[in-house]
Amino acid sequence: VVAHSSGNHAQAVARAARTLGLRAVVVMPSDAPERKRARTEADGAEVVVVGTDSDERARRADELARERGLVPVPPYDHPLIAAGQGTAGLELIEDADVVERFYAPVSGGGLMAGCAVAVHALSPKTEIVAVEPADGNDTRLSLAAGERRKVAPPRTIADGLRVRTPGEQTFPVLAAHVARVELVSDDELLDAMAFALRELRLVLEPSGAASLAVALRERRGRVGVLLSGGNAAPEHLAEAARRAGRGAP
Amino acid sequence: VVAHSSGNHAQAVARAARTLGLRAVVVMPSDAPERKRARTEADGAEVVVVGTDSDERARRADELARERGLVPVPPYDHPLIAAGQGTAGLELIEDADVVERFYAPVSGGGLMAGCAVAVHALSPKTEIVAVEPADGNDTRLSLAAGERRKVAPPRTIADGLRVRTPGEQTFPVLAAHVARVELVSDDELLDAMAFALRELRLVLEPSGAASLAVALRERRGRVGVLLSGGNAAPEHLAEAARRAGRGAP
Repeated sequence: VVAHSSGNHAQAVARAARTLGLRAVVVMPSDAPERKRARTEADGAEVVVVGTDSDERARRADELARERGLVPVPPYDHPLIAAGQGTAGLELIEDADVVERFYAPVSGGGLMAGCAVAVHALSPKTEIVAVEPADGNDTRLSLAAGERRKVAPPRTIADGLRVRTPGEQTFPVLAAHVARVELVSDDELLDAMAFALRELRLVLEPSGAASLAVALRERRGRVGVLLSGGNAAPEHLAEAARRAGRGAP
Repeated sequence: VVAHSSGNHAQAVARAARTLGLRAVVVMPSDAPERKRARTEADGAEVVVVGTDSDERARRADELARERGLVPVPPYDHPLIAAGQGTAGLELIEDADVVERFYAPVSGGGLMAGCAVAVHALSPKTEIVAVEPADGNDTRLSLAAGERRKVAPPRTIADGLRVRTPGEQTFPVLAAHVARVELVSDDELLDAMAFALRELRLVLEPSGAASLAVALRERRGRVGVLLSGGNAAPEHLAEAARRAGRGAP
């Protein structure tokens, strides 16, 4: 199989391939955290490094699929990928019961599309709130325009949320389910990581803390917050720990 | 009710008292982490601060019980406290099934006594390994001597493991179940906290990382490791984050 990913999908594909006895090739951007790359290789995958643009790694993965006859496993734009990622939302509602509001990050939209469908199936009145970085606001622009828009390569520290445009297949699902899109700054992401360290005793990476950042800003009602990803780069973990020490007990 | 504790029992008593609509007074040492004290007060308890010696806070709690007619809730030396804390070991075996070896920290011995009984009830062949700080090795000395021994007030950063002698009621239970006692240094505690941040995405406090430190040193077999306590002081969390960044991915 061949996949492209900034890191978490890469690790998932590597692990799944190893479990199934398949060979995995994963195309990763040169600015992916070293730790994500090392973990992907540790699970036996061959990592091919390209530039930082999310479009470039998708193209390279397509080439590799053709050249080597590999089966592509897309990071978000496929119904089965979205459905698999959506099991997180399913489990949240099964465990926590109906919530007023559900927050999840959106990048290519696979996780959010899957979760939104699952959450609305079990809890039709839940307000679905998508969260993206301020400079990666392609989903907000696209939903406002009613069609997919593309932004310049985002520079946010949330390396998992740098996809430049919603997926072709995920976008209509987002349009049908997402009530609003909220934007977060890098500063808010680090504050949310600090909150998670201090109050939840959990390490989150910036992308994984995005939904928490908005939930903390709004602080109302009984809500579900999807925390996705704990592969924090050392410098972000250190900064979050510093902020956690400064914060209220 | 009145309790004395370096912090985690304090918070548990405060929370339980609030839930039951009771007034809680908690005697804490002056070197308890600020965060533990603040959290105890946030749950509505009155905190009385005494010196750093664990004997001193036990005496002050006894005085308060007499003076104000409060019911004492001992931190470890009571069968019901040990039984309650032992549910952690019970849950571990229920979830993880039989293990070759079980690691838990020991201070006054309530957690370990309860867990050892629970673990051995479900998994009689499990080797029970108690972990304590190098300068708080009262349980090791006591088990070797066959009777309770007392050490000088420990200075370890593991503030939850500074009790100077095993409990009167917990000691015979430890003697019956614990196979060996391993000692850990502050340096190993910080390394174990770093491992937990990096690999488990969990914040542990030094006391809570003690059993993990020994499990990492031994690294063999299918083991159960009790991680107890995530109220890390800012300086310890920051140091662990620094070490996590240096470590292998």
